[in-house]
Amino acid sequence: MFGQKMQAIVLAAGKSSRFQTGKSKLVETICGQEMILFSTNLFSILNIPTTVVLGYQKEQIQEIINKKHGGAVNFIQQQEQHGTGHAVACTQKKWDKEHILIMNGDMPLVTKDIIMDLYKKHIEQDAVISFVTSCYTGSNHSYGRVVEDGKTIEIIEAKEFHGQQTEACTINAGIYLIKKEFLQDSINEIEKSKVTKEFYLTDLVKIASDQELTICTVNAPFDQIRGINNLQELWAAEQVKRAELIKHWMEKGVRFGIAHTVHLDLDIEVGQGSNIGCAVHINKGTRIGKNCIIEQNSIIENSILENEVTVYPNSIINDAYISSGASIGPFAYIRENTIVKEQAQVGNFVEVKNTILGSHSKAKHLSYLGNTTIGKNTNIGAGTITCNFNGVSKNKTIIEDNVFIGSNNTIVAPVIIKEDSFTAAGSTITENVPKQALAICRTRQINKENYGPKLKKRYQEENNHKESFVAAEKVKETSNTELL
Amino acid sequence: MFGQKMQAIVLAAGKSSRFQTGKSKLVETICGQEMILFSTNLFSILNIPTTVVLGYQKEQIQEIINKKHGGAVNFIQQQEQHGTGHAVACTQKKWDKEHILIMNGDMPLVTKDIIMDLYKKHIEQDAVISFVTSCYTGSNHSYGRVVEDGKTIEIIEAKEFHGQQTEACTINAGIYLIKKEFLQDSINEIEKSKVTKEFYLTDLVKIASDQELTICTVNAPFDQIRGINNLQELWAAEQVKRAELIKHWMEKGVRFGIAHTVHLDLDIEVGQGSNIGCAVHINKGTRIGKNCIIEQNSIIENSILENEVTVYPNSIINDAYISSGASIGPFAYIRENTIVKEQAQVGNFVEVKNTILGSHSKAKHLSYLGNTTIGKNTNIGAGTITCNFNGVSKNKTIIEDNVFIGSNNTIVAPVIIKEDSFTAAGSTITENVPKQALAICRTRQINKENYGPKLKKRYQEENNHKESFVAAEKVKETSNTELL
Amino acid sequence: MFGQKMQAIVLAAGKSSRFQTGKSKLVETICGQEMILFSTNLFSILNIPTTVVLGYQKEQIQEIINKKHGGAVNFIQQQEQHGTGHAVACTQKKWDKEHILIMNGDMPLVTKDIIMDLYKKHIEQDAVISFVTSCYTGSNHSYGRVVEDGKTIEIIEAKEFHGQQTEACTINAGIYLIKKEFLQDSINEIEKSKVTKEFYLTDLVKIASDQELTICTVNAPFDQIRGINNLQELWAAEQVKRAELIKHWMEKGVRFGIAHTVHLDLDIEVGQGSNIGCAVHINKGTRIGKNCIIEQNSIIENSILENEVTVYPNSIINDAYISSGASIGPFAYIRENTIVKEQAQVGNFVEVKNTILGSHSKAKHLSYLGNTTIGKNTNIGAGTITCNFNGVSKNKTIIEDNVFIGSNNTIVAPVIIKEDSFTAAGSTITENVPKQALAICRTRQINKENYGPKLKKRYQEENNHKESFVAAEKVKETSNTELL
Repeated sequence: MFGQKMQAIVLAAGKSSRFQTGKSKLVETICGQEMILFSTNLFSILNIPTTVVLGYQKEQIQEIINKKHGGAVNFIQQQEQHGTGHAVACTQKKWDKEHILIMNGDMPLVTKDIIMDLYKKHIEQDAVISFVTSCYTGSNHSYGRVVEDGKTIEIIEAKEFHGQQTEACTINAGIYLIKKEFLQDSINEIEKSKVTKEFYLTDLVKIASDQELTICTVNAPFDQIRGINNLQELWAAEQVKRAELIKHWMEKGVRFGIAHTVHLDLDIEVGQGSNIGCAVHINKGTRIGKNCIIEQNSIIENSILENEVTVYPNSIINDAYISSGASIGPFAYIRENTIVKEQAQVGNFVEVKNTILGSHSKAKHLSYLGNTTIGKNTNIGAGTITCNFNGVSKNKTIIEDNVFIGSNNTIVAPVIIKEDSFTAAGSTITENVPKQALAICRTRQINKENYGPKLKKRYQEENNHKESFVAAEKVKETSNTELL
Repeated sequence: MFGQKMQAIVLAAGKSSRFQTGKSKLVETICGQEMILFSTNLFSILNIPTTVVLGYQKEQIQEIINKKHGGAVNFIQQQEQHGTGHAVACTQKKWDKEHILIMNGDMPLVTKDIIMDLYKKHIEQDAVISFVTSCYTGSNHSYGRVVEDGKTIEIIEAKEFHGQQTEACTINAGIYLIKKEFLQDSINEIEKSKVTKEFYLTDLVKIASDQELTICTVNAPFDQIRGINNLQELWAAEQVKRAELIKHWMEKGVRFGIAHTVHLDLDIEVGQGSNIGCAVHINKGTRIGKNCIIEQNSIIENSILENEVTVYPNSIINDAYISSGASIGPFAYIRENTIVKEQAQVGNFVEVKNTILGSHSKAKHLSYLGNTTIGKNTNIGAGTITCNFNGVSKNKTIIEDNVFIGSNNTIVAPVIIKEDSFTAAGSTITENVPKQALAICRTRQINKENYGPKLKKRYQEENNHKESFVAAEKVKETSNTELL
Repeated sequence: MFGQKMQAIVLAAGKSSRFQTGKSKLVETICGQEMILFSTNLFSILNIPTTVVLGYQKEQIQEIINKKHGGAVNFIQQQEQHGTGHAVACTQKKWDKEHILIMNGDMPLVTKDIIMDLYKKHIEQDAVISFVTSCYTGSNHSYGRVVEDGKTIEIIEAKEFHGQQTEACTINAGIYLIKKEFLQDSINEIEKSKVTKEFYLTDLVKIASDQELTICTVNAPFDQIRGINNLQELWAAEQVKRAELIKHWMEKGVRFGIAHTVHLDLDIEVGQGSNIGCAVHINKGTRIGKNCIIEQNSIIENSILENEVTVYPNSIINDAYISSGASIGPFAYIRENTIVKEQAQVGNFVEVKNTILGSHSKAKHLSYLGNTTIGKNTNIGAGTITCNFNGVSKNKTIIEDNVFIGSNNTIVAPVIIKEDSFTAAGSTITENVPKQALAICRTRQINKENYGPKLKKRYQEENNHKESFVAAEKVKETSNTELL
């Protein structure tokens, strides 16, 4: 509906110099989404055709936008940055709607309601220019001030302002809706600032005011129109967004531990009755079912957890699929292309990658499972390592149903261990194991009687001998290792 | 003392529909204690005989109460829920004291002082009905409002209120003390609300006021009378309780890292001079001695730590006993029925279960110890696995004093390794080891000269051969694994 | 400059009884620095000669100061503690400058500016005594109150104050600048308090006021003059300091996750463009380069990380050197004297100590590397354990360039594995491996056909037999283990 009469210009060419990170702030993420996408998404939802003005690090920003919107957003390049007025002027050839909506690209918390209110009032009052304001009660800021005297209205940019900085005031948020006609007539009337040598888009307000044209303002809560100019403001914005997300999921029946230590991305889902522990991170692409328990300090990214899954503390799950009733951790590391089937258990100090663990199977202690397919009801002993890499290539291990892998086994791929078989503790399995067989690969134990004290004596003698060298060696070591 | 003249009714039949979790809010825990127990404990401490009105999920709630109070609490079932007035009417046959104290079951932060104040004022003023009020300055709430005009007083439930929601006001907390006589006379005078079809207990205030009977109110801080109607309020209440607990232990000489990231349950103790790191969880049943150090992100539940115990970061201790001077972690997982004796050390990536680790013994790296008894001064080498499970049953390992278990040993239970013995690195120990013996179970090493490059070449050839299949296989895999 | 005319006395003799920790509060750290050093550092930076008055636990405090200032600070012992007036009197023989600056030792947040302001005003107004005040708006505190009536001024200590505790008031911070002459004349005029039997230094203000001498006050923000009298105040002070540090590094281009869960020490550096995750601890002596990523819950102490280092979640790095482009973790434990060279990778559940890992080498899974030197492009298989300890002494392992260590190897030091060699999976390496050789140490695998079901049957029979003993045994066990 908006798309008929309105088009949007997003200003995204600036240098982010106050970020001090050496990269554009617009590629920094807030709850897992790059800052620039908050504005392009908003306009996409409202069906407003959008043009983004790029400058600094334009390739990175353009790539992010195209990946999300698949070419539906237009770009204009602002070769040199001479202020907001100049940036908008650069887009002139793209103006083809009755009203031009202009917004800074660094305002990730702006809501649909603000844009809709602005549009509604702008149309109702038949204004030539409308803009969003907010009340600011803190001290010291870099927003333009809205100065009104009943008859005239203008915006004075922070760098041009000479009054009392600490006073509460009405600020200019940085969202404007302007009649194309007026914009065309006036954009070239903006004069270069003597202070900053920039052209301020905000001068259009004074120009309209001087001509006694209709100007309209819409007030919005400061939290929604925060502009992000440094890392502290980025942090504040992410705090606001995070709190919103947690409130959202609480209302859907998700319980949180110490909620202010939890991180949620935007693109996630958590089912009713689930319980999210302290310091948990749920990152984008994650779908968690009902009545799951995710305990303290676990991190889940781009993974699906069905219902009633338990993730014990300090577990990491990336790009994996965990089926109903399965349990993971504590201290488990589940990596890409892992499927843990119903009721299966992955325990502590276990890493799993490119692996399917069949239903009701268990790998509970100190194991590495890679490129492995494991059937049902199979038990992987503590300390089991699948050797999927021979220095050149990766190979597969297949372990079928009802197998019992003894502790501390080394399983050298490619290998197949057939159903109902056993492997003896401490074995290195290099050959296929037939169905129902016991595979064993170890020698007989020898007890050398009374050898213990001899061994101890020998080690002590060696040690005494060695110690005479130690002082010299220590000096050498220290200088070699360049340590602290 | 109260028990002579007063009995309590706890209203706990409601549906908790705003929790959205699919279960009664009264079974949710706050600092490790189920919500319903906060009221029953309070009355138990004050020696007030208590009746709980149950309805939704009555079995679960009753079980929790009985487990705690061992049958000392009475229950009444409210078959259908028709409001607080109806709930109290259901308990009529239980009224046998002069005054009836009625409280909602979802008020976990109510203090003894509030109840004692209410009782004192009620008796002093010889009131027929007394109730607790509070000042509320936030916007939007679901409390009943206390409306007074100097002569009359009444409580208007939120759903019946048509005034300005956002105004500060005096609210009804949900705690009433009523003369039995008045209650008997008036309970049936309450009329069904036209709005909600419920009988409001709060109508008794208007009934008393209309009869010009003495009504008495006691004001309490809002934080103490919070009612918990959704997960956000539950979270807020737990925050309040957690802060109280941390303050309590700080005053006892316990230092906390980033205190607002720490979780404490109610039923714990921490000794003077102990230091609790950031994000630590100390869960119920835990007793920590003096001068212990519990580092970042450790979780301790139902365990005893004597004095001067150090727990390094990211350790989990459940149902265990850690003796003085012992150290645990980092990244250790101590499980049920573990005893770590004086000065013993459990190190990183070590899991211990059903095991005794003798004094001054060490298991420092990448080990699993289960169903094992270890003597004094014994050293368990890195990578040691005790194989306590053969697929059918669990068996015991005994390792006596002064034993040296070599690295990467696999110890197959049942087995006894006698004092002063050694086992060689890489051994699988299946037979008992005599005192002072050296047990060894491995073959001789063979060095195949110049075999390295051949091996590499073979692997590369195999790999090239394999790669021709890869494209096709990839497609197959993806569709098979149903991954994201 | 100050050193010409001014000397400082730090009062550090008190008992810290309200800390309840059994040790002096002055040895407690705030962001990694002992509390007493905040005042001595401040005066050291300002070049003010300093005398510290010691009493309770004087040895510990003196040691901390000497370690930092190498003998540049003087000490006076106050044998018994009779109040601040008495403490200052004890230092009389050390007075050799025109003005004596006196400060409590428990004020870690005092800034240079406060001291400079105090000095400037004191000199300008030619005051005999000047002191720092602050506005306090909270209820209940233990500060002295500044009471003025236009003509006279005095400080009334909290224990002597009988007015309304909860009123906002001007408090005495505990920093005084006094002309030596006046101090000499008046110090013995202070009378013992009837309430506490102490001599209050603050009485000097009344003495000066009564003589109509010039008294000067300087107001400072409360956050900067907080005195630390209990663990809650210590916590508050550390919060203030921590927030300052995070703000400082944000301004330098460092991004933080959930900033209020991060701990930073004072003595650290973090390079521009680096990203610090939630709950990370960066402890003293750490230098982190540019564009590093330190993920959630990692702890880094006294270590150097060059540029573009990635530390995955839950890793601990102590006393180590990590070179550019290297990656660590998740769940890695890097210990003292470790050097990880360029682009090398240490993975999950890996412990490294006294070890050099060469550039582009990898040790990615479940390994322990101790006293080991590893060359370039070498791959350490999953589950590899270096056995550097034989029960008596530690020995070295050398693994050269381009080596492939197979999975689950046990490498018994002292041993040298030469370049381009391979070791077979599951081997125990006890002898040197020549260049390009394949070392293997395992027997042939035997598959006992159809042995699986027999084994299972045997275990089941054994188990049935055992179960008849279980009940009795359980009782015995419980009483033996003295568990909860």
